[in-house]
Formats: sequence, C-alpha cells, structure tokens
Amino acid sequence: MFEEFWRETGDAAEVVIPGWQTMSYFSDVTNVCWFLEPELDRQVRRLHRVVGNAAVDGYHVLVGTGSTQLFMAALYALAPDAAAAAAGEPISVVSTAPYYSSYPAVTDFLRSGLFRWAGDADAFKGDSYIELVCSPNNPDGAIREAVLDPKTGNGRTVHDLAYYWPQYTPITKRASHDIMLFTVSKSTGHAGTRIGWALVKDRAIARKMTKFVELNTIGVSKDSQMRAAKVLAAVSDGYERRPEQTKETTTTPLRLFDFGRRKMVERWSMLRAAAAASGIFSLPEETSGFCNFTKETAATNPAFAWLRCDREDVEDCAGFLRGHKILTRSGAQFGADARYVRVSMLDRDDAFDIFINRLSSLK
Amino acid sequence: MFEEFWRETGDAAEVVIPGWQTMSYFSDVTNVCWFLEPELDRQVRRLHRVVGNAAVDGYHVLVGTGSTQLFMAALYALAPDAAAAAAGEPISVVSTAPYYSSYPAVTDFLRSGLFRWAGDADAFKGDSYIELVCSPNNPDGAIREAVLDPKTGNGRTVHDLAYYWPQYTPITKRASHDIMLFTVSKSTGHAGTRIGWALVKDRAIARKMTKFVELNTIGVSKDSQMRAAKVLAAVSDGYERRPEQTKETTTTPLRLFDFGRRKMVERWSMLRAAAAASGIFSLPEETSGFCNFTKETAATNPAFAWLRCDREDVEDCAGFLRGHKILTRSGAQFGADARYVRVSMLDRDDAFDIFINRLSSLK
Repeated sequence: MFEEFWRETGDAAEVVIPGWQTMSYFSDVTNVCWFLEPELDRQVRRLHRVVGNAAVDGYHVLVGTGSTQLFMAALYALAPDAAAAAAGEPISVVSTAPYYSSYPAVTDFLRSGLFRWAGDADAFKGDSYIELVCSPNNPDGAIREAVLDPKTGNGRTVHDLAYYWPQYTPITKRASHDIMLFTVSKSTGHAGTRIGWALVKDRAIARKMTKFVELNTIGVSKDSQMRAAKVLAAVSDGYERRPEQTKETTTTPLRLFDFGRRKMVERWSMLRAAAAASGIFSLPEETSGFCNFTKETAATNPAFAWLRCDREDVEDCAGFLRGHKILTRSGAQFGADARYVRVSMLDRDDAFDIFINRLSSLK
Repeated sequence: MFEEFWRETGDAAEVVIPGWQTMSYFSDVTNVCWFLEPELDRQVRRLHRVVGNAAVDGYHVLVGTGSTQLFMAALYALAPDAAAAAAGEPISVVSTAPYYSSYPAVTDFLRSGLFRWAGDADAFKGDSYIELVCSPNNPDGAIREAVLDPKTGNGRTVHDLAYYWPQYTPITKRASHDIMLFTVSKSTGHAGTRIGWALVKDRAIARKMTKFVELNTIGVSKDSQMRAAKVLAAVSDGYERRPEQTKETTTTPLRLFDFGRRKMVERWSMLRAAAAASGIFSLPEETSGFCNFTKETAATNPAFAWLRCDREDVEDCAGFLRGHKILTRSGAQFGADARYVRVSMLDRDDAFDIFINRLSSLK
C-alpha cells in the first residue's frame, strides 16, 4: 500500500552502498547494542520525537531482524535465568484474546525451557508471567492496556506498538513502558527490509536482549539498518525542517502519515460500505480520539479488519470466504471464535479492490 | 582484511536501492524458500560452479541472517518433531573437539526441548545425534570429515563449510553433503551484511529450515540479499567472462580469491616467523593439496591460528597473552586445552602487524 508513496519520494529515500562499506560485525562497541548503526539510533529517536508516540529519553534503542526477533529477545531477557529455569517451570507467556497468532507459534516452536505459551491473559491465574500487550491490537485494532497487574508478583509486560502510528490511530499519549517494540514494516511499509527496534528502559534487560540477537544472528544487517535510517529520515523530514534546509531549496515535503491516513480512511469507508451492502458481516465499532500529532480528532483505522460473519449457518467464516475466493486468517488462530476472520487492510490497491467487490456481493 | 580489495572494485559491487523497492515480505512464492531473492539464488549457484567447492544441482538454496541462523534452522529441522520430543529426550548435538565455541552456546541458550549440546563427537555414545562437521575447522583449520557413521542409527550431519574457499584451502573436491552452510562473512568479508546460505538436498528438510527462519525473523533482509548477490557476482565476474562482456570493454578483472590467498600466505608466513622468533609458541603443521580451482598445489591458510604456548609455566595461554596486550579466545571455550588460543587471521593490516610484533617479542 505504501509503495505508491515511496515511488513519489524520488531519491530522498534511496540508499547507495559501495562494495567496501559496513563490512564489519560491529557498529559501535561503546553501545549496549553494539551492532546498532548510530544513524539508525538517531533517526529512531528523532521520529518518535516528531510523532510523540513514545518516550525515548532514558531509553536504550535496540535493533532486530524485524520486531519478531526482538519479541523473542524480550522473552529471553525477561525469563528467569537458566539456573532458575532448570529448577522450576518455564515462565508463562500470555496475551488477551484475540491475540496475534504468531505469539503462541513463536513462543513455542523451539520448546524452550525458559518460557511457554499459556494463552489468554484474562484467564490466567498466577503471579509469574510475561504479558504481551499489542496496541492497537493485532488482529482487532483495539486499544489495549495490560490486564494483569505487574505489581502483584513477578509479572513483566512487553508492549508491541507496531501499529501505534498516526495512519492507524490517533496518538493520544506518549507511551513510556518498560519494553516497547516497533517495526519499519508497519510504520513505513518496508517489510522486506526486516528492521524492527525496541525501546528498553532497563540496562540489564537491554543487555540480555542484545545477547539474544548476538547468539541468534550475530547482529542485524547493516545494509537494512542504513536503509531504514534513510527511510525514517525521509518521514521525519516531511514534518520537520532540518537545519540545513532553507525555504528556497525545499519543495513541498511528502508526508507519509498524511498519505497513510488518507488511504486508510478511504479503505475503511469502502470496507464498511461493502459489509453493509452484503448484510451478513459486522466489524468492530469505529472509535476516535484527539490526536496530539495531527492536532485534530481522528478515527482509528486499523491495519487489519476483524470481520465477523453473522450468518447463522456459517460457523467457519474463513472457510466460507475461501469458498468465495477471499483468503483470510481464521479467528481460531487468534484464540477467538471461528466466526471471525482477520483481513489485511494494507494490500496493494488492485487486490484490495477485488476483495471489496467480492465481499459486498456475498449474501 | 578484504576491505582493501573491495575499495578497488569501484562500482562493480555497489548497490543502489530506491525507496520503493523490495518492500514486500515475499520474493518468490513458488520457491520452497519463499523469501529468497531469485538473483541471490542464481549468484550462489554460479559462484559454486565457478569455484567447484560444492554441488548445487539438485539442491535447494536457502538464505539466512548469517549462517548462524541457518545452523539453528538445521538443528530445528533435523530434531525429531515436537510430539516425539515431548515423549523423549532432546537430540544430542555433537562436534569433534576443538569445536567452534558458538556451537554449544547457540545450541543451548534457549534450553530447547528439541536439541541439546552433548560435547565432543569423539566421546559420544549413542545412535541418535546431529553431528556438526566444520571443514576447514574453526578454530584449528583442520580438514574434517564426520567421525560418527550416520548409517548406524538416527544420526544426521550438518556440514559447516564457511571456510571452504580458495583463499583458505585448496579445493580438493566438490562437496555434496545433505546440508552445507556458507556465508558471505568468510567468503567475501561482508560480515555486516549478515547473509548466509544453505545448500540442502532434501525438500522436506529445506521446508522445515525455511519454517524456522519464518518463525524466527519472517525472512531475511532483501537489501542485504541484493547486496550479497551483487558482491558474489563481482567475484564470479573476476573468473568468468559474462556473455555480455566483450574483450574490448573489459579491463583486467579484480580477483578476490587471488587477493585473499596472497594476503593469507603473507600473514601465515609472518605468523610462523613470529612464533619461531619467540620460541615459545607452536602452530598446526602446514598441509597442502592440489587445488582443482587454481590448478596448482597450494597450502592451507586457515582464517584462524590455533596457537599453543609451550612454556611449562603457562597453563592459561589466553591469560598470558592478555597480560601482553594480545586478545585471543581461550582453547577452553572450544572444548580443548587452555594452553591453546584462537587468533583471528582476518583482522585489518595495522591490527595484524601489531599482533605479530607483540607475539615475536615474547619469550
């Protein structure tokens, strides 16, 4: 969806890498995250300051191969150490349903003795856990807060804020949680670049997360870090004039979040019309809030639609839609009812248009 | 060490990535490894054909974030599945000592229920295992073959051929093992690019390794894949004229393996002279063989020196050298005697020269 925007930016987001550049494993040996390119660190902090969606002062910035790697790194860092784990049980990893289907898969695929998926946070009993809080939530777009109280025991939280950007939701406050995860995949659309970052308050946790990435992949692609830095800089430039730019030399900047919001508003309006036309689907109610970034009231426009089929005879909505050539992910994969499906709202224009046409014709 | 070479190649290995390019997670959905850029697949196969160090026909090429990720992927793919693991013990992972110090660390850091480090392959009893065969071996440069016979039980092997390139060793045969791991870090010197690849015979194993990378990092940086493809192409171009190149337009090509071999021969000669001058260090004996790539007899020039301190009163060689401002990794970390240390032979020229000077002055 964002490709159209980036085609218009010309060389503002283009990166050139000579054969001899960034050959080393190391970026900055004085940093906790020794493989983080200093320019990416700067541009991450700058963009958060421009948008106001997350605090950066007093935080360590860590880079990962997508935020998925940093999600695993956080589990590794928050779990009791190996000696404690050998004696006891792996720590429980929970998230309120419906939760991102990758959380259980990624937590359990190596059958780690350090952590283990334990399902819906709302149903969890115990005082030792890692709670994953995704807000806006994948798959249903809900604004979430932790449901378990970390003060009562050994609970820890990880905030997955991949979708906390102005194209998807009003920025209502500057988040300042212990561990916050972000990714260029959702903020700028560069999924193929595989760059995520974490903002981490505690130095010991930041060190342990860094150790995970070191053991897992000995750092993160420098080429992608440089590209991500360039892309994030181009986004910030759209909203903030840099010192070296004078009024005369600057053309009207391209503004990613304006572009993204326009597209998302348009798509959500098309989707709501299609669901209404068909008469058999319902969607989460639209919510809105005052956005501190745009300085106006805005509706949420989630990156996914959490679609419910209301027809009595359809118990497997994904199967029903598949029969009509619409590919979605079943609610069952998100710890929810199979009457729900998750639909991506970020596909290319032509694919999205076909989806809307097919959906509106179903009765 | 290779930076000097790549500075001379000009734009032959330069990559330019516009803002809108390779934004998707996907590269080729028809391929087992759906996130592998087709151009990298082509250039990997081409380089192996040029060098003759590994068979590629009938193999799947998989890409990873460095070969470390593919090492973990191989353990995941070769271990019994989760149901079998739940019932029994994790499979034993072994390698003949001295073995690469990361093998035990990477195998065990998540305390997986699927696989568990079990030490020296020579001392292993049992018929269910994964044997890691690193050849030329890290740390001692030895040419290795599997010591356990996979035909007698449920044994599987993973061949880590990171150093099986003409700058380090004569290419004596075309390797054709079930799983072979390589990396640009050691072949071309681009460690920061974090691109490794695996050549895998069996389709089901290739699928499972791909699944690991999908769960771990949802694929591999496209930017780095494109850069690696460009760099590998520049290496092959040095030895193989492409169809579109005519004699008139081509200047003398720069040849990476010639450059690398010259440097390594020079450094090993300096190191052997320094060890002799000091009188208290010994090194593995030089071996040689006929190289099918260069068509001449050549000596091995390992990427690491496996240095032994022969002084009776020095039991901890790494500690002794640290006291003389030489940083090395202790043999103890490689499952061997602490009288040994591993020294990198691939550092920058100035750092290598300082090391040689300090070493030769020790008595």
